[in-house]
Amino acid sequence: MRLATLNNGSADGQLIVVSRDLGCAVAASSIAPTLIDAMARWDDVRRPLAELNDALDAGRVTDAFAFDPKRCMAPLPRSPQWLDASAFLNHGHLMEEAFNTPPIPHFDTIPVMYQGASDDFLGPFDEVPLPSEADGIDFEGEFGVVCGPVAMGATPEAALGCVRLVVQINDWSLRALGPHEMKTGFGFLQAKPSTAFAAVAVTPDELGDGWRDGRVQMHLHVEWNGQRFGEPHGGEMNFHFGQLIAHAARSRRLTAGSIVGSGTVSNKSRAAGSACIAERRVIEKIDLGEIKTGFMKFGDRVRMQARYDDGRDGPFGVVEQRVVSAA
Amino acid sequence: MRLATLNNGSADGQLIVVSRDLGCAVAASSIAPTLIDAMARWDDVRRPLAELNDALDAGRVTDAFAFDPKRCMAPLPRSPQWLDASAFLNHGHLMEEAFNTPPIPHFDTIPVMYQGASDDFLGPFDEVPLPSEADGIDFEGEFGVVCGPVAMGATPEAALGCVRLVVQINDWSLRALGPHEMKTGFGFLQAKPSTAFAAVAVTPDELGDGWRDGRVQMHLHVEWNGQRFGEPHGGEMNFHFGQLIAHAARSRRLTAGSIVGSGTVSNKSRAAGSACIAERRVIEKIDLGEIKTGFMKFGDRVRMQARYDDGRDGPFGVVEQRVVSAA
Repeated sequence: MRLATLNNGSADGQLIVVSRDLGCAVAASSIAPTLIDAMARWDDVRRPLAELNDALDAGRVTDAFAFDPKRCMAPLPRSPQWLDASAFLNHGHLMEEAFNTPPIPHFDTIPVMYQGASDDFLGPFDEVPLPSEADGIDFEGEFGVVCGPVAMGATPEAALGCVRLVVQINDWSLRALGPHEMKTGFGFLQAKPSTAFAAVAVTPDELGDGWRDGRVQMHLHVEWNGQRFGEPHGGEMNFHFGQLIAHAARSRRLTAGSIVGSGTVSNKSRAAGSACIAERRVIEKIDLGEIKTGFMKFGDRVRMQARYDDGRDGPFGVVEQRVVSAA
Repeated sequence: MRLATLNNGSADGQLIVVSRDLGCAVAASSIAPTLIDAMARWDDVRRPLAELNDALDAGRVTDAFAFDPKRCMAPLPRSPQWLDASAFLNHGHLMEEAFNTPPIPHFDTIPVMYQGASDDFLGPFDEVPLPSEADGIDFEGEFGVVCGPVAMGATPEAALGCVRLVVQINDWSLRALGPHEMKTGFGFLQAKPSTAFAAVAVTPDELGDGWRDGRVQMHLHVEWNGQRFGEPHGGEMNFHFGQLIAHAARSRRLTAGSIVGSGTVSNKSRAAGSACIAERRVIEKIDLGEIKTGFMKFGDRVRMQARYDDGRDGPFGVVEQRVVSAA
């Protein structure tokens, strides 16, 4: 099942279901007006939504329209919580070198995770207004999951069963602000402006072989200003999403619609490239002895697209964004 | 103006206005069903709500009912963002000693702030389910503000003008989990379970002398299991709320209803006592050479009430909560 949210001027947008080829869509208004409403009533709406999806794919709906991801918001334009991990340890270890910070204790055995703002997500083609190029503007390609309700203290296995949707994420970061916020111990705040999402959220079964072991088994292809930047694979994630959700729910319950992110997709193989600039910079420092790549400038564009191992486009659609001055 | 939220079984509850003596209340349904709705339409609803408040105080409403804070949720049971600072530097400096962490860089000139979960707040008399006594269960008495929309990059002066409501907060903390999360640099997550609020949110003008220089000029009286614990004064806050909001909005806009907290109220004078256990413990260590006070046990109760400088009860009502096992 493929779900997206049309921008209709409201805060939560309008829920639509999208055909398998992402060619057309149909409003789901008769079932649920918004995705956050569908999350709250999932047991009641899941089947009707799936049936509508099937009917759309079979050409059996009369009010289908051309699907235009440029008219989409994030699948959940706002959500109860946004909890982002750093579950690709290769990335984390490289970043420690980049930030010149002491090793994070138990980094390989206990997930690290920050709480991000979840009230103002960006859609896949939204411009990204930011205050200053001096802040070290960076993209971060990630995968994530949207959860149903999770009980406090859920096991990783139970938590994995709470995954309802899989999403593709661009977690914007301001690298010049990160090290100070890490040193305070209070975590990222100014370093994490609004996060963006690809248009289409899908149920795990929709991914077929692309969802296994609680991980998204796909490459995330990243381009910066039209140039290939990397295509690391999601299968190398060191913690699976059930482990990440359980970590988040250690001392709180999660309400339906909460989103948990993987952190930047990152592979040990240098051939995979990177899904964020900061990682490329530290690799340059290590491999070449000097940093050659700067961060983004206003007007720069980033494009992200997930692809299956056999090269087919993933079902999430494309993230394609341009950074602009907020002033 | 005094606003509260009655538990009617819905996620956002029902907006009510409360009389000055907190003796009676009246539903505001005809103006706004919920406080979060009122926040979104503040320019339209502020005056009708104030008029209803005035009519209630004058005994001119026919459908008033006895105000029972035990039937109340947090004023905003869920909000777009919950951003909590540590703006009483005395507390922060003591906590550095407690956690034995290196000094936070620029702590006296740049606010520190973490992003908390904002989807599942507790009401003033709600029980507090937590996983384990071994986590170091602690209360934290704070003041906070509910903001209107704040533009990215707002100055502290402009940000102070965005304050719409003042609230009283109990920011539950799990002290055994905090030091590790600080060392990761990703900030508090498991160490911060659901936060609780006193029932009544008030407009700043309602506080009279109790709101000056962007600070709540009141004592926060804290009792643990019926024993006096402290009554530090909010006026000693080193950053004012406009500075805290501007810090939060450095690289993001805040949507209406976002809540910014002061961090634990704390005074230099030892005579003031403390508003959290961790602070008392480090004071014991410094002044007596050993820690004598343990953290909370299941069944323990905490009570918090703000009072004006002349001894009158504050307008927020009481927070009175009991810690229970989540199992």
